[in-house]
Amino acid sequence: MRFLRLTVAYDGSAYHGWQAQADLPTVQEALERAIASVTGENVRVVGSGRTDAGVHALGQAVSFATSSQLSTDVLRRALDATTPEDIAVLDVREAPQGFNAIDHALGKRYRYVVQDGRQRDIFARGHAWFVPHRLDESAMQRAATALVGRHDFKSFEAAGSPRLSSVRTVRDLTIERREGELSDLLHLEIEADGFLYNMVRIIVGTLVQVGVGKERETWPAEVLAARDRTLAGPTAPPQGLFMLWVDYGW
Amino acid sequence: MRFLRLTVAYDGSAYHGWQAQADLPTVQEALERAIASVTGENVRVVGSGRTDAGVHALGQAVSFATSSQLSTDVLRRALDATTPEDIAVLDVREAPQGFNAIDHALGKRYRYVVQDGRQRDIFARGHAWFVPHRLDESAMQRAATALVGRHDFKSFEAAGSPRLSSVRTVRDLTIERREGELSDLLHLEIEADGFLYNMVRIIVGTLVQVGVGKERETWPAEVLAARDRTLAGPTAPPQGLFMLWVDYGW
Repeated sequence: MRFLRLTVAYDGSAYHGWQAQADLPTVQEALERAIASVTGENVRVVGSGRTDAGVHALGQAVSFATSSQLSTDVLRRALDATTPEDIAVLDVREAPQGFNAIDHALGKRYRYVVQDGRQRDIFARGHAWFVPHRLDESAMQRAATALVGRHDFKSFEAAGSPRLSSVRTVRDLTIERREGELSDLLHLEIEADGFLYNMVRIIVGTLVQVGVGKERETWPAEVLAARDRTLAGPTAPPQGLFMLWVDYGW
Repeated sequence: MRFLRLTVAYDGSAYHGWQAQADLPTVQEALERAIASVTGENVRVVGSGRTDAGVHALGQAVSFATSSQLSTDVLRRALDATTPEDIAVLDVREAPQGFNAIDHALGKRYRYVVQDGRQRDIFARGHAWFVPHRLDESAMQRAATALVGRHDFKSFEAAGSPRLSSVRTVRDLTIERREGELSDLLHLEIEADGFLYNMVRIIVGTLVQVGVGKERETWPAEVLAARDRTLAGPTAPPQGLFMLWVDYGW
């Protein structure tokens, strides 16, 4: 068997998330259908993470095994042409035997987009969280520094979906204001060796509490130390979340 | 009666254009319904231009007469909250008696967005024209200079929709490449004292012929001089077009 790694972008608006579910459109199922159409094989693909309904990707990583002899370049173009218009296959490359996009990931980066201010930006809907206040991104950035490093992120893990360990290393957490036409967009990017379920969205929901002035800049550090999900902010909605890339060291 | 001017943004993807048509969703009809809901009056609104199906606006100007006594600020917030999520009411202001958004316009500016390159950007679909070639925007910009100034734009007017005169003054025509995440976007902006039907889209279709290298840089000037629609390039598709603003001198 031959193992392949795909890099895939998708607009998650029309999908019930990544993972295949009976009778519901999902990104996994759309990809498997495209692979069947191109190679004639019914394969099961593995995504590096199971994005929720409404979550997007600029560089989701996907692994699968195939006996197809098509070149990676031909496969890329054929899969990209076969997937629906809201899914793009950006790259196909040969992977080591036994490659698995979940187990072998060394790190990931996500972006979360918040549209702040008084006026809802109609062109950002579906791709940002509208927060109808001017956010103090400098206060959010200062508060965020407490989360960088190796910590137990139990406070930022959705209840009911525990991993064996909730210790992760956040390598970078930056907040940048980008001026737009109808509105500004805050780009919050977070990179780690791995993420707990809903970790990015709970961190964003927590930092936004600081940004609107409801909580002090030192509060996220206290939430982190408490290891208690009930103390953190709300889970930010899915449509602002973009998976940017997954690192495998190659 | 009191005359008002609205500034409205919309994502035209879901609409059959601006102008009210029986049983089809249009932006005009959605605005008139919101006004009826807020003021209790059935009014007819006038847009500065009748954008086609799929065309967007960042600042369409709209006029109507009302006997409502609500302040412009209350009206703006109420209308913005009442319109569908793909229509925003950005501004409401008092207008002179008899104000009409078509007849009194002094100038307008449009943007046309082209996504070029080999890889379709899934996040630009519906808001750009995908041209699967790398465009030479410098050649397009040099070609475009021939169209600036007062000219007879008959070659760039859709057949079957003649205005009394096809002479217009193009005040500015600029092409700028903006680097994006998944792709670059070319922003072509054109400002004039008025536009003929499909004029922006035919000019874009013509300049893109230069950008892909099918025609020489001097060709758009020849097309202009010929005053013959059949010599110009194809009409660019609607989804790349955005009405930016309309000028009334106040």
